[in-house]
Amino acid sequence: VNKPDALKMVVQHDEAGIIGIVGGIGPYAGLDLNRKILDQTLARRDQDHVNVLMLSWPGHIPDRSAFLIGQSQDDPTVGILRCLRVLERAGASVAGIACNTAHSPRIFNAVTKVLRDSESRIAVVNMIYEVAMFLRTNYPAVKNVGVLGTDGTIRANAYAEVLSEEGISTTYPDPDVQHSRVHPAIYDSVYGIKACSEPVTEKARKYVLEAAHHVLEDKGADALVLGCTELPLVVRERQLYGKPVIDPTLILARALIARVAPDKLVPLDL
Amino acid sequence: VNKPDALKMVVQHDEAGIIGIVGGIGPYAGLDLNRKILDQTLARRDQDHVNVLMLSWPGHIPDRSAFLIGQSQDDPTVGILRCLRVLERAGASVAGIACNTAHSPRIFNAVTKVLRDSESRIAVVNMIYEVAMFLRTNYPAVKNVGVLGTDGTIRANAYAEVLSEEGISTTYPDPDVQHSRVHPAIYDSVYGIKACSEPVTEKARKYVLEAAHHVLEDKGADALVLGCTELPLVVRERQLYGKPVIDPTLILARALIARVAPDKLVPLDL
Repeated sequence: VNKPDALKMVVQHDEAGIIGIVGGIGPYAGLDLNRKILDQTLARRDQDHVNVLMLSWPGHIPDRSAFLIGQSQDDPTVGILRCLRVLERAGASVAGIACNTAHSPRIFNAVTKVLRDSESRIAVVNMIYEVAMFLRTNYPAVKNVGVLGTDGTIRANAYAEVLSEEGISTTYPDPDVQHSRVHPAIYDSVYGIKACSEPVTEKARKYVLEAAHHVLEDKGADALVLGCTELPLVVRERQLYGKPVIDPTLILARALIARVAPDKLVPLDL
Repeated sequence: VNKPDALKMVVQHDEAGIIGIVGGIGPYAGLDLNRKILDQTLARRDQDHVNVLMLSWPGHIPDRSAFLIGQSQDDPTVGILRCLRVLERAGASVAGIACNTAHSPRIFNAVTKVLRDSESRIAVVNMIYEVAMFLRTNYPAVKNVGVLGTDGTIRANAYAEVLSEEGISTTYPDPDVQHSRVHPAIYDSVYGIKACSEPVTEKARKYVLEAAHHVLEDKGADALVLGCTELPLVVRERQLYGKPVIDPTLILARALIARVAPDKLVPLDL
């Protein structure tokens, strides 16, 4: 093979496809999605793994929650679109966005509308829709899920809208728990997950577990959805109080693999 | 902002630059480099982090070690170049290759020659050169380092060539230790790190620690270099037998941050 020719040639889209990841929102959450794609792939050697292209471009994507609750006018949609455009140009055929808040209709629908209008060929998998499908398929008895997430995700009612179409109701924490436990566990600049991911702090984990107790035990939800991609970084348990803990990042990872290499998907182990 | 315009516009190179990662060789080693870039960045919120674009394209890059020892004629150079080309076109100004064996002169020099000849603007940081600089700066008393790596890295003498220019000699494991401990810890299809990364196996870790004892205690090296990007996945210790353990992935992560955002580098903590 002539190497200069190899370098100059137009990059052909890979036959098996490339999974694109809109990372950086937050950066560790993007890594977590990327790692779960590897973990959920049947592979014995490097070459067995699927192709993944992750762009972490955090300075270009303002805070999604601050935008949705009206604290900031900086619209994250433009940065997410630019990111998807880079991924598509580099050969990604399918993409995931490693941020629940970005799946709020005001952001996600704006992104997908622009992609449709511009005849983009990249397919963006909707993480929240995948969670709804996952619950219906694997936990048909679950009628009410407790969702922990950012203020923006809750204010935008991102989960409730999609889950209600599957006959599942959504329980959020009471406002005082949201403000004193969930939001600071994610955002606090001293102990929050976005500020301290390696390692995460005991305080962030404790606060998330207290909020989990609140929605599962006090409010009686049938299952817990870790509805912010930072939360699986502190909660590794697959059950709490005998009820399933749903990790949307893991479900998105599996949905992305299923699009490019369904034969390589590790069997589901609930 | 008009969103369709934002989507259509040519992606401008980011002022601060994008760090490119040639990942997939192996896939978990690429993630490890990416994570160390985050860990070594001073950041309190998503937007403080540097831009990173990682392409994991494992099916396009045949095994580096098999090529170097003559077991295979499949040259990994072409795949690495294609990967770098994708990263450059997407806006990366600097790149790291998350694989020590790919830094063997026969592969790395071929890659950089093609880049020079084609007037590529992407700067590929040489991980082994960075390790030599790091040792000279931070461990001036170290005169002899023990290097654990793949058969290819050792056969190609990748470390010895660069380190000798800094007056440092290189000790490799004896052939029986290399064949019975180091190589299988990386490559074994049942317990090796490439096959089992999440979690790694106790056997892989035990074998690597036995090889470390061999070069540090039996052969008297002053420091240990984890000269395969899979090895830091099983050895987290920063010292063994009172001697420093050098992680080239960590050094590469810091060298990449230093190129795009030196003011954001976490102070070195030896």
